[in-house]
Amino acid sequence: MRKALLLLAALPAAAFAQVTGAPSPPPRTEADARVERLRDAALKDDVAFDIMEGLTTEIGPRMAGTQQEARARTWAVAKLKSLGFRNVRVEEFRMPTWVRGAETAEIVSPFPQKLSVTALGQSASTGPNGITAEVVGFDNIEALRRAPAGSLRGKIAFVSHSMTRTQDGSQYGFAGPARWNAPQVAKDKGAVGIVIRSVGTDYHRNPHTGGTNWAVPGEGAAGNARRSGAVDPSTLPAIPAGALSLPDAENLGRMLERAPRNRPVRMRLVLTPRWIGQQVSGNVVAEVPGTDPDAGVVLIGGHLDSWDLATGAFDNAAGVAITAAAAKRVMDAGRPKRTIRVVWFGAEEVGVFGGTEYHRRHNADTGRGRVVLVGESDFGADRVWRVDFGLGPQNKALGDRVAAALAPLGVARGGDRAAGGADVGAWAREGTAVIDLQQDGMRYFDLHHTPDDTLDKVDREQLRQNVAAWTAMLATVANAPEEIGRASSPD
Amino acid sequence: MRKALLLLAALPAAAFAQVTGAPSPPPRTEADARVERLRDAALKDDVAFDIMEGLTTEIGPRMAGTQQEARARTWAVAKLKSLGFRNVRVEEFRMPTWVRGAETAEIVSPFPQKLSVTALGQSASTGPNGITAEVVGFDNIEALRRAPAGSLRGKIAFVSHSMTRTQDGSQYGFAGPARWNAPQVAKDKGAVGIVIRSVGTDYHRNPHTGGTNWAVPGEGAAGNARRSGAVDPSTLPAIPAGALSLPDAENLGRMLERAPRNRPVRMRLVLTPRWIGQQVSGNVVAEVPGTDPDAGVVLIGGHLDSWDLATGAFDNAAGVAITAAAAKRVMDAGRPKRTIRVVWFGAEEVGVFGGTEYHRRHNADTGRGRVVLVGESDFGADRVWRVDFGLGPQNKALGDRVAAALAPLGVARGGDRAAGGADVGAWAREGTAVIDLQQDGMRYFDLHHTPDDTLDKVDREQLRQNVAAWTAMLATVANAPEEIGRASSPD
Repeated sequence: MRKALLLLAALPAAAFAQVTGAPSPPPRTEADARVERLRDAALKDDVAFDIMEGLTTEIGPRMAGTQQEARARTWAVAKLKSLGFRNVRVEEFRMPTWVRGAETAEIVSPFPQKLSVTALGQSASTGPNGITAEVVGFDNIEALRRAPAGSLRGKIAFVSHSMTRTQDGSQYGFAGPARWNAPQVAKDKGAVGIVIRSVGTDYHRNPHTGGTNWAVPGEGAAGNARRSGAVDPSTLPAIPAGALSLPDAENLGRMLERAPRNRPVRMRLVLTPRWIGQQVSGNVVAEVPGTDPDAGVVLIGGHLDSWDLATGAFDNAAGVAITAAAAKRVMDAGRPKRTIRVVWFGAEEVGVFGGTEYHRRHNADTGRGRVVLVGESDFGADRVWRVDFGLGPQNKALGDRVAAALAPLGVARGGDRAAGGADVGAWAREGTAVIDLQQDGMRYFDLHHTPDDTLDKVDREQLRQNVAAWTAMLATVANAPEEIGRASSPD
Repeated sequence: MRKALLLLAALPAAAFAQVTGAPSPPPRTEADARVERLRDAALKDDVAFDIMEGLTTEIGPRMAGTQQEARARTWAVAKLKSLGFRNVRVEEFRMPTWVRGAETAEIVSPFPQKLSVTALGQSASTGPNGITAEVVGFDNIEALRRAPAGSLRGKIAFVSHSMTRTQDGSQYGFAGPARWNAPQVAKDKGAVGIVIRSVGTDYHRNPHTGGTNWAVPGEGAAGNARRSGAVDPSTLPAIPAGALSLPDAENLGRMLERAPRNRPVRMRLVLTPRWIGQQVSGNVVAEVPGTDPDAGVVLIGGHLDSWDLATGAFDNAAGVAITAAAAKRVMDAGRPKRTIRVVWFGAEEVGVFGGTEYHRRHNADTGRGRVVLVGESDFGADRVWRVDFGLGPQNKALGDRVAAALAPLGVARGGDRAAGGADVGAWAREGTAVIDLQQDGMRYFDLHHTPDDTLDKVDREQLRQNVAAWTAMLATVANAPEEIGRASSPD
């Protein structure tokens, strides 16, 4: 696949259309040719990998609100300046901060052995002595929801589920509720704790962490207080909640099947995370100043924070590296018409605090600060395979030019339902134009939020293809002669 | 590959020879036909998987000398009796027992982050507060050996090395010295601790444990005191010794390259394993009694103990399961001529105590107890691809019949250098006949001695092929009309 990709990349777009018999592209202009040259040069990019290597080696895990994330911001400012970006700065904010403690799980009866567990973000603590209780198993969150009220009093719920690898990552929506919502459901039914089968697709003894959502009392399990930003999550009632690795979850499932009726499966669970109050996080901002202050800003980025279990290579050193490397390529080719603003967001994993704060502060910016188009890279380091647009009807030709510039990289045109990612989603939701470069997700949920999300997982050729795709997109939109309008009117 | 294997298995041996143009097999007898029927029926075996599932689910990790290993023996006796074996018994022995404690490693300067570490078997303790020292890196054990005397005083040595997947597992001998011997070499040069790149081939955050060898004072680094059984390893001078996962080892390597000259890489290492004195281990023995007490015993098996990090599916629930399932198939087809004795050895991982003890006690057995042929399964659950013999010249025809019975399973004839495994090696070394059914090792060192050695890794079709191979071999040798002599004279 790698070989085929490079071959296609070497062909000019016109030749590609001929080979495949696709409809004739729009007439090729000198501007198109410039984009193609930039794109093809990016297939030899080393800047993105260098950023990833530096961040994962010199900083490592970058949990939001911690000293590690603060060190990452300092590192990021120095790196972005050294790459030649302008107006490099940190926009700080404060957010309630949760940190991991001890975490162990062991079956005490009838088949004593340890299981591999990690606390979900915003889990309550069991206290240092842990809790010991009977385990009640459910095949999925729907089965848990059907459990009678009060039936889990004094028990530890275990929620399993299935999850299949999908290229577009869509099974995150299918399996994710076991993490996002099942803890609150179990709490509502009286459980003293919950362990879930990790929301992931690999069979290694590395559980997948990730945030869970506790409800505002009275709002019920559907409440998604965390994402709203309106409620301090550290104030919400919670129970201890952990994830087991897939091998451990399946082992626990077999134990539940094999346990004699008079000797139920009992687990001792120790999770001692804690809230350490309001701490500083921040967004790191860097710019490629445009020649036309009235043309608006193209806002792109990824998130600088990571979960604490790994060095966060896929999630999301890749995203900050890809977007910065592409912006640098456009910058080095000469000042673009529009300002490109690269933001490395803080505190995404624990509740999209950085993205939410950035939108809140800058949504009303006018004049030189007006954001006209957003894009985000936050789905690993594997290749871009589809482009989705969220452009207004007046910018159809712009979308056509972007699609044509991406096609030689093996990127197909998708639909018109681009939504941005978590950090720029607020812009897209209120009508700002958005372009999504969709990455291949077949490996993503093997690594997502596990200790295994490390630099060695990066395929350098696929990473370069990402840089090339972003370079092609950015060079096109940043220099587009036409006005970039809104995708839709504000609500 | 699986499909092709089953297709071949379905063909009678004669047809197979025709297809491949191989030399004509010896005339096919009724005895050969019986072996073939048993072999082919074994391709539908469920007994081996059932044993593996039971042992990994109901017992889990089975560290030598611990209560978990004792529970495994009780489980094993009940299981072997329920399968119909006779003379099921435990032969206990005592051995010095080492158990794991806390284990953490973190870089404190210049790039603070945690690394994934596990103690090597027989590591000394750092004490609960750990040791903090500068890390000095070596590309391999040879580079460490070249370090000047005293040059590691007060330092933590880091030994990297390369290891490539090999089908025959031969790179264990190439990379293994980094674990077996480097700790003693580092100690001799004054190091206060050592971390090695795991002896393994996977890129998961799961370090590979395994025993290391400390020297008897005065004997130097080449001393292999552990395996000799002559010295109590708990009495030997040692330093703290751990293994890093491959992603962590490579990260540490990058840190050593990137650290400023005036800010060397410093690690805090906490390993608190301890020796808990002489504890009970044991070999679990079961028999299929033969009809001819004078024909000698065929001794086969694997090891019941495992390292403590995983449920020991490949290492070595597979071996005890495969050998017992095959013996049961021969048993259920009618009493064989020779007694088949299945031994599930104890305390292999920590120094081959069970195998050594078994040989010591039974080496001189005569009459009904005389062992005439040995075999061992201790290389995972993937398919048998080669058979190696260690038979006397008088038993050439027996080897030919075994090879012919195995060929339809895709098992090629190797050489005449069979050595048994660790647990039956003492028999082979002193001249007892031996047959090695060599398993495919391409995945073995991804899992070996890691937390990842769990049931989900088992490919049930390959496991069945193992049972079929062992059934064919056992049915042939246990019923061989000729005398099975020694491969060589005793030393």
